Amino acid sequence: MKVKVGVNGYGTIGKRIADAVSLQEDMEIVGVTKTKPDFEAKNAVKKGYKLYAAIPDRVEVFEKAGLPVEGTIDDLLEKVDVIADCSPGKIGAENKPRYEKANVKAIFQGGEKAGTVEVSFSTLSNYDAARGKNYVRVVSCNTTGLTRLLYTIKEDFGIKKVRATMIRRVVDPKEDKKGLVNGIMPHPVSVPSHHGPDVQTVLDVNITTTAFKVPTTLMHLHALNIVPEKNVTADDVKGSLDKEPRIMLVSADDGFTSTAKVIEYARELRLRYDLYENVVWEDSIGMDDGEIYVTQAIHQESIVIPENIDVVRAMFDLASKEESMKITNRTLGIG
Amino acid sequence: MKVKVGVNGYGTIGKRIADAVSLQEDMEIVGVTKTKPDFEAKNAVKKGYKLYAAIPDRVEVFEKAGLPVEGTIDDLLEKVDVIADCSPGKIGAENKPRYEKANVKAIFQGGEKAGTVEVSFSTLSNYDAARGKNYVRVVSCNTTGLTRLLYTIKEDFGIKKVRATMIRRVVDPKEDKKGLVNGIMPHPVSVPSHHGPDVQTVLDVNITTTAFKVPTTLMHLHALNIVPEKNVTADDVKGSLDKEPRIMLVSADDGFTSTAKVIEYARELRLRYDLYENVVWEDSIGMDDGEIYVTQAIHQESIVIPENIDVVRAMFDLASKEESMKITNRTLGIG
Amino acid sequence: MKVKVGVNGYGTIGKRIADAVSLQEDMEIVGVTKTKPDFEAKNAVKKGYKLYAAIPDRVEVFEKAGLPVEGTIDDLLEKVDVIADCSPGKIGAENKPRYEKANVKAIFQGGEKAGTVEVSFSTLSNYDAARGKNYVRVVSCNTTGLTRLLYTIKEDFGIKKVRATMIRRVVDPKEDKKGLVNGIMPHPVSVPSHHGPDVQTVLDVNITTTAFKVPTTLMHLHALNIVPEKNVTADDVKGSLDKEPRIMLVSADDGFTSTAKVIEYARELRLRYDLYENVVWEDSIGMDDGEIYVTQAIHQESIVIPENIDVVRAMFDLASKEESMKITNRTLGIG
Amino acid sequence: MKVKVGVNGYGTIGKRIADAVSLQEDMEIVGVTKTKPDFEAKNAVKKGYKLYAAIPDRVEVFEKAGLPVEGTIDDLLEKVDVIADCSPGKIGAENKPRYEKANVKAIFQGGEKAGTVEVSFSTLSNYDAARGKNYVRVVSCNTTGLTRLLYTIKEDFGIKKVRATMIRRVVDPKEDKKGLVNGIMPHPVSVPSHHGPDVQTVLDVNITTTAFKVPTTLMHLHALNIVPEKNVTADDVKGSLDKEPRIMLVSADDGFTSTAKVIEYARELRLRYDLYENVVWEDSIGMDDGEIYVTQAIHQESIVIPENIDVVRAMFDLASKEESMKITNRTLGIG
Repeated sequence: MKVKVGVNGYGTIGKRIADAVSLQEDMEIVGVTKTKPDFEAKNAVKKGYKLYAAIPDRVEVFEKAGLPVEGTIDDLLEKVDVIADCSPGKIGAENKPRYEKANVKAIFQGGEKAGTVEVSFSTLSNYDAARGKNYVRVVSCNTTGLTRLLYTIKEDFGIKKVRATMIRRVVDPKEDKKGLVNGIMPHPVSVPSHHGPDVQTVLDVNITTTAFKVPTTLMHLHALNIVPEKNVTADDVKGSLDKEPRIMLVSADDGFTSTAKVIEYARELRLRYDLYENVVWEDSIGMDDGEIYVTQAIHQESIVIPENIDVVRAMFDLASKEESMKITNRTLGIG
Repeated sequence: MKVKVGVNGYGTIGKRIADAVSLQEDMEIVGVTKTKPDFEAKNAVKKGYKLYAAIPDRVEVFEKAGLPVEGTIDDLLEKVDVIADCSPGKIGAENKPRYEKANVKAIFQGGEKAGTVEVSFSTLSNYDAARGKNYVRVVSCNTTGLTRLLYTIKEDFGIKKVRATMIRRVVDPKEDKKGLVNGIMPHPVSVPSHHGPDVQTVLDVNITTTAFKVPTTLMHLHALNIVPEKNVTADDVKGSLDKEPRIMLVSADDGFTSTAKVIEYARELRLRYDLYENVVWEDSIGMDDGEIYVTQAIHQESIVIPENIDVVRAMFDLASKEESMKITNRTLGIG
Repeated sequence: MKVKVGVNGYGTIGKRIADAVSLQEDMEIVGVTKTKPDFEAKNAVKKGYKLYAAIPDRVEVFEKAGLPVEGTIDDLLEKVDVIADCSPGKIGAENKPRYEKANVKAIFQGGEKAGTVEVSFSTLSNYDAARGKNYVRVVSCNTTGLTRLLYTIKEDFGIKKVRATMIRRVVDPKEDKKGLVNGIMPHPVSVPSHHGPDVQTVLDVNITTTAFKVPTTLMHLHALNIVPEKNVTADDVKGSLDKEPRIMLVSADDGFTSTAKVIEYARELRLRYDLYENVVWEDSIGMDDGEIYVTQAIHQESIVIPENIDVVRAMFDLASKEESMKITNRTLGIG
Repeated sequence: MKVKVGVNGYGTIGKRIADAVSLQEDMEIVGVTKTKPDFEAKNAVKKGYKLYAAIPDRVEVFEKAGLPVEGTIDDLLEKVDVIADCSPGKIGAENKPRYEKANVKAIFQGGEKAGTVEVSFSTLSNYDAARGKNYVRVVSCNTTGLTRLLYTIKEDFGIKKVRATMIRRVVDPKEDKKGLVNGIMPHPVSVPSHHGPDVQTVLDVNITTTAFKVPTTLMHLHALNIVPEKNVTADDVKGSLDKEPRIMLVSADDGFTSTAKVIEYARELRLRYDLYENVVWEDSIGMDDGEIYVTQAIHQESIVIPENIDVVRAMFDLASKEESMKITNRTLGIG
């Protein structure tokens, strides 16, 4: 029997979850919601997803636009085992009572506060903590990217301290009203940023983060300083990262001189140029004063998708962490 | 018997031609050339394309990088019926003697001057002019976009005059050294720009163009004023454009508010978010003083690909214009 | 006796008006308003402007921030002969009843609708229409730029038709939340844009406009096609524009290859790199089919400042158009 | 008697040095060189600077353009005591033999290697090292910014270790051909970047740096982690930085939310919006694990100007460090 999954909010994250769930044998997509009948809604229908109105009284708006709607979010909730809430940040928390009332498990995204759920989740670091849970939050793109890399290093070498500077894409590529056209914005100005404590909801590590927005849409970039517990060499670190399929090593020698080149590569690889993997510059891995320096790029639109699949298996106790990762990686073409 | 095609320069245009040729039953890719063993070269090998060194004395560079090379461009020329020259602008002309010596037909791209070839080419307007020819130039992305739209309007309504303002993406998405970060650049400053005369190499029309570079990578945009010979309404124009499969109508009502949204749509549609079609804003088609106004966006990286396939059929007299377009459109998923 | 001027909204336009009024012998700044005590408010105080709270109940907010406040907008209105409303678009109309009640003349900016005022204003084209009036709107930056150039051409050669494509900076340089990071946005999608009719509120001319937003902050650019009534040469047009001090001719030969270079020049010229003049590329002036082509750049932050000074003289009947322009140009360093 | 100064290369740095020297009582500008007669050259003449051809055989080019030229760089060298070499990076080293032959002292900029000169220079940290020297290099914008801040902290609290992430503007605002339009570029990819060792040419401190280019033109930004020798509080650090006039504290509460806002402020302050001061976000100064975190922005075009003035006094033994800083600060309006 397959777990019946609904997606509330067929946007940047929601549409990717829908496609990824469709590739799993132990899950199926029952339906997706949209707030308006735009080209994304039409795409959903074209792909065969059943469409529901995210806002109950907008059913007519879809019908006027000639789009078949199966009902409202409440109708969808009656048919699913779990809902992936992909609403804009903070709206998820407002939706929670609706899910509780419908007696449906729910997955929230990183824009929600940790306090909204029973447990925050990142596959590598704490898969088991989500087993059997009803309300789980998959941490944000930046936190997922940090956690994967730090978990891997920590397992192999231990970590005393992490100092991370996040250089963030200011908006996603599809945005045409928000942004920062020319400038650099400390975000937040005060130190540390919220990313450090967010990592600590899923991984026990001493981390301090600062974050800055810059006028690009493609990827986030993390400049990391990691103080390991053991003595290590740059090659040790490369070896450690290289064995984790959700981390991809690239090299400037191969032409990967910027996130622009990384995305050019991704355009060949997957539809929507999705990069589920942390992209780590192999040549950036260096040691100085016994501390590790490493630079990685994170595709903010897609990096959390594998974790959103794994979390379903954890919440319904369908598989062990290793089994789930194996299936997710295989179906998504990771590694 | 299939036409044996080689690609000289597996870059932005070259890699797309290679993939498109691979989808045709009447053609096959014999090999592709690269100047250096970067991730693009590795991708070519991964896809099964035989790799040749574009610059003969660089064979060793590829071998040192662990990439299998079949030989040099000259070796490739011995095995093909036609070479698609996808070198950077002006280099194609330098390559021509090499092709002549090898007695191989050659397709050049829009970066070369019209004088380099026997005939310039754009499927809709002058397919037959290329029949049996040996050296043909597929006109540039902007010229292809203009020609498709103007040919369609001209066939239906006649054209007295065209005034076109081209707002150009300054560099392709993969570039990370060239550009214009904040500003608008008349290019050229003097009027008219070269695009008007370039259209006239393939279509008989009275056209004046101006062009400006702006800091974006995604698409070019054309703001067109067309004086038709017949009396027409906006609906007439919509109907005319709507029936041509290589022109796609989109609407701001569906959420297509900018080229950013158009590309977001394309990311769902095709690998590399290729858009072989002119993207015309349906809502932009308007009449004023008996003149047509219309806005279109052009995906500079992929719009010439259908024409590069058709031109092979014309040069080898494999099919009529209508037959070739039908096959090309079907295999590339156009229309 | 000097005309007592107040500025409601010491922002991008307001602060420039305050400084420009301060340079006039027949006017004086009585005070300026701000909504919050940020660095702009502190600058105002540092420059010696008396500060008033634009929103009456925020006086305390300023006091807490240690900024001396003279009172509220209503207190300011009691002391002035005319208020320059520099509120964000549409707010000006909401303020009008307040000005009427205080029996104070008011100047509105281009973000307000023409219907809000007795007359729309652009010095060159209709100075006299504002004489003695109480509520006048200085047209927007784009409209001011178009009107100056078209008035000059029309006076000398007559105009049958204008077709203008506006390539607009998406936000001002100081914005760090709004924008368009990568893309081109038709704005509006439908033709014609509102700029044409807006020009017609101050100049009798047959004009059709289209407009597009692009990711730059520095200047707008206008690509113009003008059909003159008389036969003219490019040199005639240059001569015509060259004699108007509020139009500055520049040349690519001198290094003016883009708006980035124009602003680099302006940084040498005036504080805030203000360019009160239309910047016309001399090399862009060309004739084709008897039609004039010309490209100009418009500094959106400062181009309306001379007109905001002239309008005071018109409303209080202090000087003829020629006299006012002479004084304004001299005090602002134009020509 | 005034020191006679020449500027070789009246560009971004050169024109600012010329203006700053003109404000000093103990120096004078004898002449400036240009390679071509563009608007910058015309501005130089308009300001009264005597113009010389940087490339001897181009005198005619200037004359044809109607610009009076006094001679060549060699003629200029005969008349000066010291030449400020403001050539593009690496060209300065090529010019050195010319200066030696003319027996003229020379100041080089940060684009040259430390090995080119007798000593590298940054006023606060090593003024005295340049006393009486003939060939001195003023370190680059990023290094100057780092050195000022680190010297100040080190003097007050000692420094065990510095980890700095530099987020760099990709090109200056005037550039319209180079750049990075959409992306983030590790530069260099390998750690550490050259900035750390460059700081060490003028300040004895343990520092590791990484650097990234982002698509903005306005300012560089530095995210700093500093391990002090003494126990300090955030207020101690604020107090330390606040007393150094070449460091300016700003606050997000005052509206300084990004480098875009900082530049908006600077546009009010000085022609060309020059910011000679390090701009430190007061709200960014925080302590974590006994380590200082602080964010500063650096105006790459102007921050080295005060140091270029001080270095003349050091090389000619005109004043002590304190005296020179006092004069330079007063004449440039710093503090």
